[in-house]
Amino acid sequence: MSDRPESGSADMHPNWPALVEDTAQPWETLSTRLMFEGMRAISEDHVRLPSGVETTYQYRRRGPRAVFALPVTTDGQAVLIRQYRYPLRATVTEVVAGGVEAGESFLLAAQREVAEEVGGRGGEWVALPGFYPQPSISGVVFYPFLALGVTLGDMAHEDTETIERVILPLPEAYRMLEAGEIHDGPSSLTLFHARRVLEARGLL
Amino acid sequence: MSDRPESGSADMHPNWPALVEDTAQPWETLSTRLMFEGMRAISEDHVRLPSGVETTYQYRRRGPRAVFALPVTTDGQAVLIRQYRYPLRATVTEVVAGGVEAGESFLLAAQREVAEEVGGRGGEWVALPGFYPQPSISGVVFYPFLALGVTLGDMAHEDTETIERVILPLPEAYRMLEAGEIHDGPSSLTLFHARRVLEARGLL
Repeated sequence: MSDRPESGSADMHPNWPALVEDTAQPWETLSTRLMFEGMRAISEDHVRLPSGVETTYQYRRRGPRAVFALPVTTDGQAVLIRQYRYPLRATVTEVVAGGVEAGESFLLAAQREVAEEVGGRGGEWVALPGFYPQPSISGVVFYPFLALGVTLGDMAHEDTETIERVILPLPEAYRMLEAGEIHDGPSSLTLFHARRVLEARGLL
Repeated sequence: MSDRPESGSADMHPNWPALVEDTAQPWETLSTRLMFEGMRAISEDHVRLPSGVETTYQYRRRGPRAVFALPVTTDGQAVLIRQYRYPLRATVTEVVAGGVEAGESFLLAAQREVAEEVGGRGGEWVALPGFYPQPSISGVVFYPFLALGVTLGDMAHEDTETIERVILPLPEAYRMLEAGEIHDGPSSLTLFHARRVLEARGLL
């Protein structure tokens, strides 16, 4: 594409436009129904495969998108969070993340989440490669960012969140990543992609 | 723990024992029910948060575990797959992956999937850091491996899989990773963790 942004754009990474449905569809949908409605809606489709075999597939439809953000402060510290995750019954070290609201751009969603979850504002934003967290079961797409030169202030947690802000030197964040101490996969991948930019800027 | 294995063990990475429920639980479960049964079962719990707020949380329970594996051939080529993923309506580049069957070790599950999906056998296996693919919604845990010196033979795909084997030089696999051309997040993270081992062995 001639009009796609340079790598390092704040608004979009060059791989984002590729995170869409293919033109050719090898599986044929024979019928579809929602198992239940709501935030976590699961569909059950009856499908025919290229082999002619028919089967049933339960999955989460495309639609939900979430943003991830690694804020780095003006003095070069990484800002992570420790968040209690009820499905795991565990507190997990993560980067800032949250859903994209209707009508909101990915960049504005990420900036809103950084402000709410860690009180971070401003900075230079860099879009990183997007990805699918669980293609076997889910149509969800995740869009990560790095934010450089962020200023920290007050947080504004939702009352259904249990979040602690963790500020630590970038080398320590990357030591944790390599050791497997950041148990959240999408956060780990955000850190991985951010590293190239941090190294290029001499911050790591 | 004094009995945890060295990094580089075939059976388990040192972070795997940490991927469990915490002892302290800040949220109290008031009631729980299954929205529906089956492979993709979703629970809906009524919970009380530390703030006293009560809310409802829909999620996938802990229990399902999946293994991921990057096989590298005896001549130093990466073996990836291209797999049609119905929830995304897209064919996605991934590493080999699959669910752990009852009574099966993670290592044996990974070796079975490598044999089935790409016809890979033998090799030296290295366990990599495990992770949660989607803590906000799911209790699923993913366990990745690197397999060095694998021999390729015939494949045995399940008739509900649409899989193509992709053999490519390791530097090309890592170029794709950095460019965001491997859209599957867990596969990307498997490649990231495998790189340290490949570099230490002089394979990359």
